[in-house]
Amino acid sequence: MEFSSKLLEKAVNEMAQLPGIGKRTALRLVLHLLKQPKEQTRFLTEAITTMREEVKFCRSCHNISDNDVCEICANTKRNQQIICIVEDIRDVMAIENTGQFRGIYHVLGGKISPIEGVGPSQLNINTLVEKVKSGSVSEIIFALSSTMEGDTTNFYIYKQIQECDIITSTIARGISVGDELEYADEVTLGRSILQRVPFEKFFKNN
Amino acid sequence: MEFSSKLLEKAVNEMAQLPGIGKRTALRLVLHLLKQPKEQTRFLTEAITTMREEVKFCRSCHNISDNDVCEICANTKRNQQIICIVEDIRDVMAIENTGQFRGIYHVLGGKISPIEGVGPSQLNINTLVEKVKSGSVSEIIFALSSTMEGDTTNFYIYKQIQECDIITSTIARGISVGDELEYADEVTLGRSILQRVPFEKFFKNN
Repeated sequence: MEFSSKLLEKAVNEMAQLPGIGKRTALRLVLHLLKQPKEQTRFLTEAITTMREEVKFCRSCHNISDNDVCEICANTKRNQQIICIVEDIRDVMAIENTGQFRGIYHVLGGKISPIEGVGPSQLNINTLVEKVKSGSVSEIIFALSSTMEGDTTNFYIYKQIQECDIITSTIARGISVGDELEYADEVTLGRSILQRVPFEKFFKNN
Repeated sequence: MEFSSKLLEKAVNEMAQLPGIGKRTALRLVLHLLKQPKEQTRFLTEAITTMREEVKFCRSCHNISDNDVCEICANTKRNQQIICIVEDIRDVMAIENTGQFRGIYHVLGGKISPIEGVGPSQLNINTLVEKVKSGSVSEIIFALSSTMEGDTTNFYIYKQIQECDIITSTIARGISVGDELEYADEVTLGRSILQRVPFEKFFKNN
């Protein structure tokens, strides 16, 4: 792609570093900013810069927070003994949106993935193990995605806390609500049948 | 969408102002920046800010340029008498990539669109008409998209320069190279037949 301006080219190249943004999309975004008042660009860059420089991570669960301890961990109405382990803060937001979970979270910041060079030491695993070993936890819920990396990470953590006297569970896998059975993959459908729940329980949850 | 941090929320909201970027995508982009070194965010915001503040538009063709006159207009090897009228600078880049045009451009900056509140006065039409009336132009090529807005804009400009002694042409419409005839729409296929070219000409261009 040939640019008529070096400034434009540089802005497009930087924008195209973002995931899922190719050069064409980057050009469209940058040209959009050019058509808008200068303030919009200033608001955007200031918001990103401030966020990047000043955002904090909760020292208990590693969720993004404006304070040292996030609102969820600081909420005394939540059950601090049940910890849901998730990959990143988007998962926290997704589970919070369901309104079904009243415990707290632990954000790992990724999954163990040798291919991408992510080992256990790069993830927030040690703080979790310490918390469990301190005896303040009664249940751990594994809520990582069910990929090979997710399963590996689950298993690695499980091994470390195996000897502690706590309940460990994993979120249910099965057919999505509203999905047709015939289009489900075999593994999911198989798990759906193996892990079937009493019909009365289904009634209560609905 | 509930955010655990006001700073994050603000950054996501600003990012989601960009066209085609929803809140989910914005969140993904912002979280990506958080995982990267702080420099990447600095490079990005600096590149965008500098571009927005310092970029110039060629005073002859209104293309984006680092100088007062863009490289294409300043190039004496190009035929300054043939002007290709395009909607925005992406079209300049697209035509330049073909390597088939050796004239200069005129970037309108949009199309006449009453629905979106864009009238002739918001577009770079006057400078074009002046240029044509000054007698320095021999041919005008209309290269706007063939939508109602594009046709309206073409016609508006044509009316203004009608009395000048110049050639006016419009880019050919027809079946795309490599496309199957059966999938083409009727209007395109119809134009393809009406505006057929001598077979020898086809040979020469390939």
